[in-house]
Amino acid sequence: MTGPEWLERVRALVDAELDGRIPSAAAEPRPLYEALRYALLAPGKRFRPALVLAAARWLGRPEPDVLPAALALEFIHTYSLIHDDLPAMDDDDMRRGRPTLHRAMSEDLAILAGDALQPMAFGLLAECRAAPARVLEAIRLVAEAVGPQGLVGGQVRDLRPPTGGVRSGDDLLALHQDKTGALITAAAVLPAVLAGRDDAVAPLRRFGEAVGLAFQITDDILDVAGSQALMGKATGRDERQGKTTFVSVYGVAGAQARARDLLAAAQAEVQGASADALHALAAFVVERDH
Amino acid sequence: MTGPEWLERVRALVDAELDGRIPSAAAEPRPLYEALRYALLAPGKRFRPALVLAAARWLGRPEPDVLPAALALEFIHTYSLIHDDLPAMDDDDMRRGRPTLHRAMSEDLAILAGDALQPMAFGLLAECRAAPARVLEAIRLVAEAVGPQGLVGGQVRDLRPPTGGVRSGDDLLALHQDKTGALITAAAVLPAVLAGRDDAVAPLRRFGEAVGLAFQITDDILDVAGSQALMGKATGRDERQGKTTFVSVYGVAGAQARARDLLAAAQAEVQGASADALHALAAFVVERDH
Repeated sequence: MTGPEWLERVRALVDAELDGRIPSAAAEPRPLYEALRYALLAPGKRFRPALVLAAARWLGRPEPDVLPAALALEFIHTYSLIHDDLPAMDDDDMRRGRPTLHRAMSEDLAILAGDALQPMAFGLLAECRAAPARVLEAIRLVAEAVGPQGLVGGQVRDLRPPTGGVRSGDDLLALHQDKTGALITAAAVLPAVLAGRDDAVAPLRRFGEAVGLAFQITDDILDVAGSQALMGKATGRDERQGKTTFVSVYGVAGAQARARDLLAAAQAEVQGASADALHALAAFVVERDH
Repeated sequence: MTGPEWLERVRALVDAELDGRIPSAAAEPRPLYEALRYALLAPGKRFRPALVLAAARWLGRPEPDVLPAALALEFIHTYSLIHDDLPAMDDDDMRRGRPTLHRAMSEDLAILAGDALQPMAFGLLAECRAAPARVLEAIRLVAEAVGPQGLVGGQVRDLRPPTGGVRSGDDLLALHQDKTGALITAAAVLPAVLAGRDDAVAPLRRFGEAVGLAFQITDDILDVAGSQALMGKATGRDERQGKTTFVSVYGVAGAQARARDLLAAAQAEVQGASADALHALAAFVVERDH
């Protein structure tokens, strides 16, 4: 199976699992389940679950052992997209090629659907097949990655310009390490934590950090150079809003070079035949058009 | 130590622990920690943590073993208050005697502070001193209690009138069992789950269900008969909004009688000298003036 074939299989697997895990839109309270299905089952890259499964493959761990963790991270990612899109935050109308949840339904349901996804994610994590002490460590890791020193803290920094008003390249880097990097790194590391493979934590952490940063740089490039139709959301927003991005700091060519360097650095961290999926995933991050 | 003295000691303990657990408002990202401290350290009843500690006392378990769980439930309760107060939800201006977080700071910070409290709570739960398998069970229990079939689901039902538009007494009951009852019941049951005291789960569950319902009935009575100054938030809202409440269904006297019956039923579930704190807490729920 080639890298792209593996990614396609994993995306289909994750889509089917997500569909099976969320009660039908006819369940009560119905508006909530409609909202959850709308947000979770919209076509997504499923990048974070794919990263969990690719890291498990590298470690020779069975997919079913880590699948709940993979789904949990997609739940958390989806909650963060729903809340980031809210009028009080980024005020976005389109996401994954459809109206954002608060546009399609209502703002209160969007807040509450996001709120529901977090405990659902931690409940899923608690279902992972591994020694209970390791599952607890995985839960602590994810809690840290999505709290004030991770995803939420990064979003706060993104919404509030630094003192002085101008964001430096270093500040931009730190912001994205929290906002998107922490969860992506957690995805890479989780299978090693669950398997008790302490030796694999450090290379997977470095892999995740490099790939997470390359992911954000590529996002910034696509916001300038990408197709709105392929992206499924508005493009060119960063420039209109005068936002500091990796493109505004390094230029398109500089940002592309940096993303390629990060791809090479990430791939060098994980070697061997079973690293094929991790390598394919890292390449996808930099080479994608959406 | 009398019941009220115990409650006062526990409130002071919880306040001090909350203060110690949240980094100072000078930590980065500063607006987020300011928001977290504003919301968490506002004067609160600390009812859910007190319930955890009272149940642990009944079971003869040391306080430090369950303290992280007690704090975790206050984190979750605080997040739910912050989000319930948002303009897109109940649109409240006052809470715990102060402007609500989105009024005092901003709506985006209020959303994000609430979002941060959830993973912080699950991280705290993962710190409980007990066998890892039991801690995982506690995490699953809380995840269930605050998800679509618990707190969030109840809030959705509260915001959306049932088909036909008129809410029955049964529907009101089911709504509050989810919105406030599930987390209160979890608070009562958690120490038994953590201690592996399966025999104590059922009585504590019934205690929690009765007390949770009495709590909501008393809230409805106080909204009609209570003092706005003591409550620290607007009163009389339910009637102005034409909301179905336990008072609109049963009348003030009927609701008071029902709350007293629930108090007696709750106290009958837990017996013995070490049940003193649970008894005092149940009495406080019904007899409080705020």
